Amino acid sequence: MAVNLQIPARENVHSVKGVRIGIGSAGIKTPGKKDLTIFVLEPGSTVAGVFTRNRFKAAPVQVCEKHLAAGQPIRALIVNTGNANAGTGAQGLDRARNMAACVAQALSLDEQSVLPFSTGVILEPLPIEKIEKAVPQALENLSESNWFDAAYSIMTTDTLPKIHSRKTEIAGHSVTLTGISKGAGMIRPNMATMLSYLATDAFIAQPILNKLAKSVADRSFNRITVDGDTSTNDSFIIMATGQGGLRIESEDDPRLPELEAALEAAALDLATKIVRDGEGATKFMTIQVEKAASAQEALKVAYAVAHSPLVKTAFFASDPNLGRILCAIGYAGIEDLDVSKVNLWLGDVWVARNGGRNPEYKEEDGQRVMKEAEILVRIELNRGNDSETVYTCDFSHDYVSINADYRS
Amino acid sequence: MAVNLQIPARENVHSVKGVRIGIGSAGIKTPGKKDLTIFVLEPGSTVAGVFTRNRFKAAPVQVCEKHLAAGQPIRALIVNTGNANAGTGAQGLDRARNMAACVAQALSLDEQSVLPFSTGVILEPLPIEKIEKAVPQALENLSESNWFDAAYSIMTTDTLPKIHSRKTEIAGHSVTLTGISKGAGMIRPNMATMLSYLATDAFIAQPILNKLAKSVADRSFNRITVDGDTSTNDSFIIMATGQGGLRIESEDDPRLPELEAALEAAALDLATKIVRDGEGATKFMTIQVEKAASAQEALKVAYAVAHSPLVKTAFFASDPNLGRILCAIGYAGIEDLDVSKVNLWLGDVWVARNGGRNPEYKEEDGQRVMKEAEILVRIELNRGNDSETVYTCDFSHDYVSINADYRS
Repeated sequence: MAVNLQIPARENVHSVKGVRIGIGSAGIKTPGKKDLTIFVLEPGSTVAGVFTRNRFKAAPVQVCEKHLAAGQPIRALIVNTGNANAGTGAQGLDRARNMAACVAQALSLDEQSVLPFSTGVILEPLPIEKIEKAVPQALENLSESNWFDAAYSIMTTDTLPKIHSRKTEIAGHSVTLTGISKGAGMIRPNMATMLSYLATDAFIAQPILNKLAKSVADRSFNRITVDGDTSTNDSFIIMATGQGGLRIESEDDPRLPELEAALEAAALDLATKIVRDGEGATKFMTIQVEKAASAQEALKVAYAVAHSPLVKTAFFASDPNLGRILCAIGYAGIEDLDVSKVNLWLGDVWVARNGGRNPEYKEEDGQRVMKEAEILVRIELNRGNDSETVYTCDFSHDYVSINADYRS
Repeated sequence: MAVNLQIPARENVHSVKGVRIGIGSAGIKTPGKKDLTIFVLEPGSTVAGVFTRNRFKAAPVQVCEKHLAAGQPIRALIVNTGNANAGTGAQGLDRARNMAACVAQALSLDEQSVLPFSTGVILEPLPIEKIEKAVPQALENLSESNWFDAAYSIMTTDTLPKIHSRKTEIAGHSVTLTGISKGAGMIRPNMATMLSYLATDAFIAQPILNKLAKSVADRSFNRITVDGDTSTNDSFIIMATGQGGLRIESEDDPRLPELEAALEAAALDLATKIVRDGEGATKFMTIQVEKAASAQEALKVAYAVAHSPLVKTAFFASDPNLGRILCAIGYAGIEDLDVSKVNLWLGDVWVARNGGRNPEYKEEDGQRVMKEAEILVRIELNRGNDSETVYTCDFSHDYVSINADYRS
């Protein structure tokens, strides 16, 4: 029951010159399910990634970081669902490397030119033989037109695919941006999200792309939360194939800000689509904290509200039990918060003024906004000039059902 | 559906000489419900309290802190349910003071000798006239034998009352300890819990009692969590009437440690009873983190596990999806955690060894423990010698139902 999650028509998903995708079925968890996805990049592409800061980094994340750090051009990515290959020790690391090696061998590449990704259950051994067996099958159907299907083949508890695709013009050059993401639970990315792959046909020099990956993730995937659980496998990858006309070779290129804005818009769309399809979500909430003394404290308040099970269940019920929001602001960890300066709006309704109930607030106004599928919660701290926004969803019976039944 | 919550028989709830309790019905939320409780203390009693660190402190909490700081002996407490008098601004403060003044007037006491407490919905005006009207009725039935009924009259979403009562002997003196607590949701006390009142007939000098209140709360109420939401109204009160034979006048009194241990055991029982009756709880979990580099980091890990919605729903489902516990350990915020040293036990089953799945771990063993109503999660970090324990419950459909319907 995703919230206003738009899926573009297949014909509106633009291929990105220089990126081919193959899809296979390894039968990791469910026989017959498409659970293997391989991206192959043309020579001349640059790739950058940001990964989970969970200390229990999954084996494939560790291998990705190592391969990216090695500095050789990345030429392929392999992604499996159904098993996260996390908490699997030395054997897990071997198997993550084997995934990469298997693709490398088939394509006559160096092992370090391939990045492996896994998503699914933690603490279970990766069935590497099944994956190795399915790689040739996936490589057989490599095509530039597979983005739409790949959005499905990377899904786990997602109910809908997340796709962003756009053609734009920057300084007279046509630029294509297409990306996909997956994730619905265990979502509170810290430096990145579950899995997201964003490609452009612009050329972006490696050092610039490295910086872009971080700054774009920070303003998109690092601003969403479903349940506060930072996954072991979060990965966000940007690929720039350089097959289009736009080439960014220097940080001072005046066209870079426009490209960065386009990449950020794409990443934010892919990130908020994860929230819209958050496990059990029936509401999409934007938590905007304004006039904070620092970005960090604005985020503290926004996440306290976004993670409160009481706030989330009130939204699920469309019950304007809005004292719960004040309560969350109060325990967010700002020791010197002067609550008598705090204002709270729900959509266009001014609920709390100077830390207390706004005398003009009427419950029926709150009720009206609570019934909407998309709700803006706006909090004014009146301590400074920093603002931050976090995106989240409500907490429903289905969240419990999904996570109580996920493995069975 | 509380988890193994024992209610003592009425005749086993000992009165505490010097404490009388009156109960009334103000009709704050539900007509006819007993929602008003008044404690009256004999002269010579000492009282200390610790309160929520939520910045949106409820009006009665602010008044309690002021009255306790004034230094006059506290002679009475008044508690209402159905309305938290929080987020209510200057008017709320006036009404909290009015609650105290009304009792003070009836008993010919100074207003500062009375402590007011409220619990219920936040952000709604307190119906002070209803309370003032019910005070005489409550004072009419003042009795030392009302503890059992008071445990009911302070309940909100609680399904069962929480009572601890014990007679013990310390250095030849009989000492009685009786206490009650309430709370089921919005429970992650920070310095104290929702509402808890613990009385003893020992005499404890005021400066000693002040310290005791903090240290006892820290090792009991500050170690429980239901949903991570630190309430605006948390209050923990210790009353020492001095009507029994034991008198503690000095911090060096050799009998103090034994009395402190008895108070701590009482507080821990009252605190864990709140978890056993956590909203929707079907399981009681003890999260024990060992060999940490500091108590603070042990608590970080314990709370990350205790708050993870994914861990809590897995326990609800009795599904040994235990990678979710490793995941929570990994994002708990210990930047230099060496996961290859982490061990995890579920009850007597060794699940993860050196950061990965224990080769000898069998899913059926995990399954067997997950089916129990009380589960010990033991985590060994192997970084030092500090240990901490946190108590929590699972996350069920009923949590969502209760909190989606609370006001309706």
